[in-house]
Amino acid sequence: MIVRPRQHWLRLIFVWHGSVLHQILFRLLLNFAMAVVAVLGMSQFQAWGLHLSTAPFSLIGIALAIFLGFRNSVSYDRFWEARKLWGMLLVTARSLLRQAQTLTGRRPDDPAVREFAALLIAFAYQLKHQLRQTAARPDLERLLPPALAQRLGQASYPCVLLLREMGLWLQAQHASGRLSDIRWQAMDANLNELTAYHGGCERLSSTPIPYAYSVLLHRTVYVYCTLLPFSLLDSAGVLTPLISVFISYAFMALDAIASELEEPFGTEPNDLALDAICITIERSLLELDDVDQLPQPHQPTEDHVLT
Amino acid sequence: MIVRPRQHWLRLIFVWHGSVLHQILFRLLLNFAMAVVAVLGMSQFQAWGLHLSTAPFSLIGIALAIFLGFRNSVSYDRFWEARKLWGMLLVTARSLLRQAQTLTGRRPDDPAVREFAALLIAFAYQLKHQLRQTAARPDLERLLPPALAQRLGQASYPCVLLLREMGLWLQAQHASGRLSDIRWQAMDANLNELTAYHGGCERLSSTPIPYAYSVLLHRTVYVYCTLLPFSLLDSAGVLTPLISVFISYAFMALDAIASELEEPFGTEPNDLALDAICITIERSLLELDDVDQLPQPHQPTEDHVLT
Amino acid sequence: MIVRPRQHWLRLIFVWHGSVLHQILFRLLLNFAMAVVAVLGMSQFQAWGLHLSTAPFSLIGIALAIFLGFRNSVSYDRFWEARKLWGMLLVTARSLLRQAQTLTGRRPDDPAVREFAALLIAFAYQLKHQLRQTAARPDLERLLPPALAQRLGQASYPCVLLLREMGLWLQAQHASGRLSDIRWQAMDANLNELTAYHGGCERLSSTPIPYAYSVLLHRTVYVYCTLLPFSLLDSAGVLTPLISVFISYAFMALDAIASELEEPFGTEPNDLALDAICITIERSLLELDDVDQLPQPHQPTEDHVLT
Amino acid sequence: MIVRPRQHWLRLIFVWHGSVLHQILFRLLLNFAMAVVAVLGMSQFQAWGLHLSTAPFSLIGIALAIFLGFRNSVSYDRFWEARKLWGMLLVTARSLLRQAQTLTGRRPDDPAVREFAALLIAFAYQLKHQLRQTAARPDLERLLPPALAQRLGQASYPCVLLLREMGLWLQAQHASGRLSDIRWQAMDANLNELTAYHGGCERLSSTPIPYAYSVLLHRTVYVYCTLLPFSLLDSAGVLTPLISVFISYAFMALDAIASELEEPFGTEPNDLALDAICITIERSLLELDDVDQLPQPHQPTEDHVLT
Amino acid sequence: MIVRPRQHWLRLIFVWHGSVLHQILFRLLLNFAMAVVAVLGMSQFQAWGLHLSTAPFSLIGIALAIFLGFRNSVSYDRFWEARKLWGMLLVTARSLLRQAQTLTGRRPDDPAVREFAALLIAFAYQLKHQLRQTAARPDLERLLPPALAQRLGQASYPCVLLLREMGLWLQAQHASGRLSDIRWQAMDANLNELTAYHGGCERLSSTPIPYAYSVLLHRTVYVYCTLLPFSLLDSAGVLTPLISVFISYAFMALDAIASELEEPFGTEPNDLALDAICITIERSLLELDDVDQLPQPHQPTEDHVLT
Repeated sequence: MIVRPRQHWLRLIFVWHGSVLHQILFRLLLNFAMAVVAVLGMSQFQAWGLHLSTAPFSLIGIALAIFLGFRNSVSYDRFWEARKLWGMLLVTARSLLRQAQTLTGRRPDDPAVREFAALLIAFAYQLKHQLRQTAARPDLERLLPPALAQRLGQASYPCVLLLREMGLWLQAQHASGRLSDIRWQAMDANLNELTAYHGGCERLSSTPIPYAYSVLLHRTVYVYCTLLPFSLLDSAGVLTPLISVFISYAFMALDAIASELEEPFGTEPNDLALDAICITIERSLLELDDVDQLPQPHQPTEDHVLT
Repeated sequence: MIVRPRQHWLRLIFVWHGSVLHQILFRLLLNFAMAVVAVLGMSQFQAWGLHLSTAPFSLIGIALAIFLGFRNSVSYDRFWEARKLWGMLLVTARSLLRQAQTLTGRRPDDPAVREFAALLIAFAYQLKHQLRQTAARPDLERLLPPALAQRLGQASYPCVLLLREMGLWLQAQHASGRLSDIRWQAMDANLNELTAYHGGCERLSSTPIPYAYSVLLHRTVYVYCTLLPFSLLDSAGVLTPLISVFISYAFMALDAIASELEEPFGTEPNDLALDAICITIERSLLELDDVDQLPQPHQPTEDHVLT
Repeated sequence: MIVRPRQHWLRLIFVWHGSVLHQILFRLLLNFAMAVVAVLGMSQFQAWGLHLSTAPFSLIGIALAIFLGFRNSVSYDRFWEARKLWGMLLVTARSLLRQAQTLTGRRPDDPAVREFAALLIAFAYQLKHQLRQTAARPDLERLLPPALAQRLGQASYPCVLLLREMGLWLQAQHASGRLSDIRWQAMDANLNELTAYHGGCERLSSTPIPYAYSVLLHRTVYVYCTLLPFSLLDSAGVLTPLISVFISYAFMALDAIASELEEPFGTEPNDLALDAICITIERSLLELDDVDQLPQPHQPTEDHVLT
Repeated sequence: MIVRPRQHWLRLIFVWHGSVLHQILFRLLLNFAMAVVAVLGMSQFQAWGLHLSTAPFSLIGIALAIFLGFRNSVSYDRFWEARKLWGMLLVTARSLLRQAQTLTGRRPDDPAVREFAALLIAFAYQLKHQLRQTAARPDLERLLPPALAQRLGQASYPCVLLLREMGLWLQAQHASGRLSDIRWQAMDANLNELTAYHGGCERLSSTPIPYAYSVLLHRTVYVYCTLLPFSLLDSAGVLTPLISVFISYAFMALDAIASELEEPFGTEPNDLALDAICITIERSLLELDDVDQLPQPHQPTEDHVLT
Repeated sequence: MIVRPRQHWLRLIFVWHGSVLHQILFRLLLNFAMAVVAVLGMSQFQAWGLHLSTAPFSLIGIALAIFLGFRNSVSYDRFWEARKLWGMLLVTARSLLRQAQTLTGRRPDDPAVREFAALLIAFAYQLKHQLRQTAARPDLERLLPPALAQRLGQASYPCVLLLREMGLWLQAQHASGRLSDIRWQAMDANLNELTAYHGGCERLSSTPIPYAYSVLLHRTVYVYCTLLPFSLLDSAGVLTPLISVFISYAFMALDAIASELEEPFGTEPNDLALDAICITIERSLLELDDVDQLPQPHQPTEDHVLT
């Protein structure tokens, strides 16, 4: 996700990076070529009795609008639900760490508190690596005792084991008399919340939009755009290539954006900035532990800010 | 539900399996034949004074768009709610098992803990079999004591009895002094959650989209597609069969996808992969119990992955 | 609500029962007659200088689409919210009965437990009768002690009094030392839930979709359908009556379905099957109380299943 | 909000009261006059080279549809959220009163219980008067001790002080040993709920739909309707005034309904019946306190029922 | 956000302030100029064989409708979610202060209670300044002890530290025997809520609508509006500049409103009135603390009221 300052309306039209134009450029060139063929062969086609007006395209437009509108909003909902899950992960981690200090009566620089903070931070990194299928080991070894990091590295569901470690930490506080039953339960409820965010990310990641939608949408968009130049000859004449590319651009770009947002845990320009969110979680929890030296926030590349 | 790696846009257009094309192929051929008749009989129809332009089809298109758009989003919402219920079932089962270990102070390999895990796993399998109306007995006998498995096999609402068994397990922990009132209540609240997921699945399964919608939608779509070729003669000429099949394909396919998603607990290609979810629940709970040998994850058939 | 097995696409087109065709048949015949008049008087109208094309109908179609789409989704949301409330009622009743057994340490066949189950079952029946404005007395007398049944029969808000009875039952368990404060509170929270479902049903029942919408929608639909045949003369010629009835059918049927779903507690074919849901609640709670003889599930009439 | 029995479809078309026709009648007459001018001046306009077809109106219709559809659903959502807040207020008041009886072990006719009920009833009336900016004093004096009523009359946020009074009542029950910590907390949680409903109503009341939407929508609708007659001359001829008024009616009425629902706490025919809801709250709480003489339910005026 | 009394429909059309007209005036003038060029050069263009009808614009209109409708509702949802978060912040602050009085048995004018209120008020101001990137220091120094204000001024996440201060306040009440475990937990749960509202605002602020949407929408709108005059020549003739500006106004204004609402924490006319909300929070908490002299509510500028 690239955050930029609000830009002049005119600059927005000529921007290249972060838009999806580069993905569909080849297909638009194909469409342009097809339209040029249509214009050049116009009289020949009519000689063959082939003729097409825009009227049928209004009819198919209804189906296309339902498809694109639906897929677009479902993809965005997936993107936004993913963002909410990670936002709540940060929120609940802060709440748990505040509770680990105030409910147990421990100071922020107490080793036990910092150990708990490390579990929370490791949970975020582990989840990020799992969703992106990257190696969690370096981050885990940086944050956790070696034995635990190794155990997690061999597990099928390491996030679940991390949550059990947090549960054992609470158990130990109770055993040492620092956490009453009531307060234990209050913190344990927040572990349930973390479990739910983890499960929510797993759900989004393992269940894409039903496959038949993608197939149907692609077929409809591409057949539509391919036939389009021939139907524009009457109403646009020699301007047909221009108009055809413009219309095709709108439909194909809409398809391409939705396709990026659909899987929000990837690393494409419009995906979630999980790296930056993980750093934020780490920084916020360390500051809450009164650690003086916080790690640097995620550095933006080029002229934009990653969050 | 079939998960595939993201595919090239061109390949998406020619895919067969997982799309719904095979379901509506016959109807599309009928539509093609009708369009050929329309083209061949054009001059005869006009001699009889029969004539139809696309204008009325734009008007009916408004009603069609409302119907299809509505049914499509309602069907998807049902599919997604079902997926969420099963995702939350996994989440709450993990939370309950973590609590069964940390709140009672039992080790992961404690027989009592494993007995509780078996109840949770059996609950998931029982619910799957109930929703698909398949035989739950083999899975129950594999997981539970014979007497309980038999009792469940005779029950009308076996999932409810399984939840009572979990409640009795909690009662026994309390009686043995391992679970204080507060912690008991924290776990009991999660049993309420499981009851709600079970009830949610029952609701989706027993209450389809009102019947009148299906009837009305089918009638409108099929009358529309049948009359369509005659209205395209003016604007598409000899290309009428091509355009007519293309438009009909979009509308019929939209109808067919929605029809699959509407009942998400079936076994069609776009339905929920309950088999795979049940295995995931079993694997995750066993790992949390420190069982070394986990069952194999669900094997994908052919070239795709079932989740 | 009528549940049927999935039907062949062709059969769906000719079905009569459960569709709303019978409700609007008379109005469609009127529309047909109007269209015949339009065709026969065509030349006369033109002589008078009266002429109408389909273009203005595209414009009004925009307003119609907003109205119908909005009313349709609001009606369905009301239907589905009502279904969810009743689904949650079943869920919470099961949870409360499980708690009444496991949290108090009572056996399923304990008279006190069965008394509590009777209160829950009576609550469901009382709510159904209130929503349908039918006599609750026979069901209450079957389930409850005569004095209580009589008191409820005189009350303005009998469901609220039933919830107080459940509260008193909990109070008695606490007084007898079987229910600690914590567990009492856990069950009392579920009484709050039942109160909310009751209030939600009251809200749906007493607050219809604002009246002005119905008026405006009816006016627009009927003026539209009445003028429609005259505008189709150009584009459909002698086929005008056929096309006009087809378009009118789609709009009027959409209106009629929404009108049925809008008040989901009625007894029309597309309304909620409250009888069947009440029986399910009774059966499920009795089975949870280890009662051997359960009442029969709701019998489907004719060839369909009521749920 | 006016509730009527379901009416014959034909009667719905000619109803006057409760529809919004009287609000826009003048503007429709203006539109009719404009259309007559258009018809009479048709040949003169053409002589001047002025000509307009319906095609541009289809384009602007897209923007209009987005605006009207959006504003309509936002307005209805505001109306429905307001209704839900008041429904939940009734629900939570019932729950609190049930708890005030069963959790403290007090009888329904205990003066302390009735004092608590009076606070709840006064809260509802105070909120209604605040939202409608009417004088709360008479209702407060009827229900509360004079000193409290006077204090509330001088306060900027009297509902908040009423909630504190309820909190102090709970504190007193705890001090007298009738309410354990756990049960106190269970009731206090419901006070949080009441605070949230109050805050939700304040939010809806103080934050209308952004002003720019109203401006933009009005401008678009009125410019559209003013230009409309000129564009209909080709396609509707002398029928232009009729068609123009029909189309304008649909758009203006949609605008007018949304405008009424947008501020649901007013006293227009389609606003919430807060008077009736307050009486229902009072009646329901008094019956729960075993008061024999309940106040009369809200009397419908004329031939319709206010709820 | 500017709240005005409901205005006459005619006045709404000519209002300037608060509408977005001034933002797009220059672009509309450009559009007008382009349309004048189109009218003047009409015969020349046709001589070159350049011709364009409105038909292709209906097709592109479908894509435009999906884009604008989607962006519009997403922007409004962001605005409304932000408003809800701030509304809940007020609600939870009131609940916490009521609890700080009634659950600890302290009087409203107790210094400890007022210290807690100051923390809550400071939390609101700090969050406002963070979201608007303005200096929080003056407000913090006005409300908090100097040492704490200084510490917050140096922090990266000062709101999180304020929540910890509230947690420490609760801890102190528990240590002094005024707050039992249960009541402590009830108040701590509300701190979790505040943490969630803070996190929600951070999420909205750091994650805009994906950049590609803005780019695509701008491109489509501006290319559309630029080509529009040429396509209107046939259907609007010399009226082309008028009609073109009208249509462009609707689309560009819709874009501009959405762009303002998208970032609801700014200071543009249609953004949230955070100043006024903060004053309301301060006034409401101080009144609940029985402070006699409340600060003035936010003063409206000119003829409108800021809330």
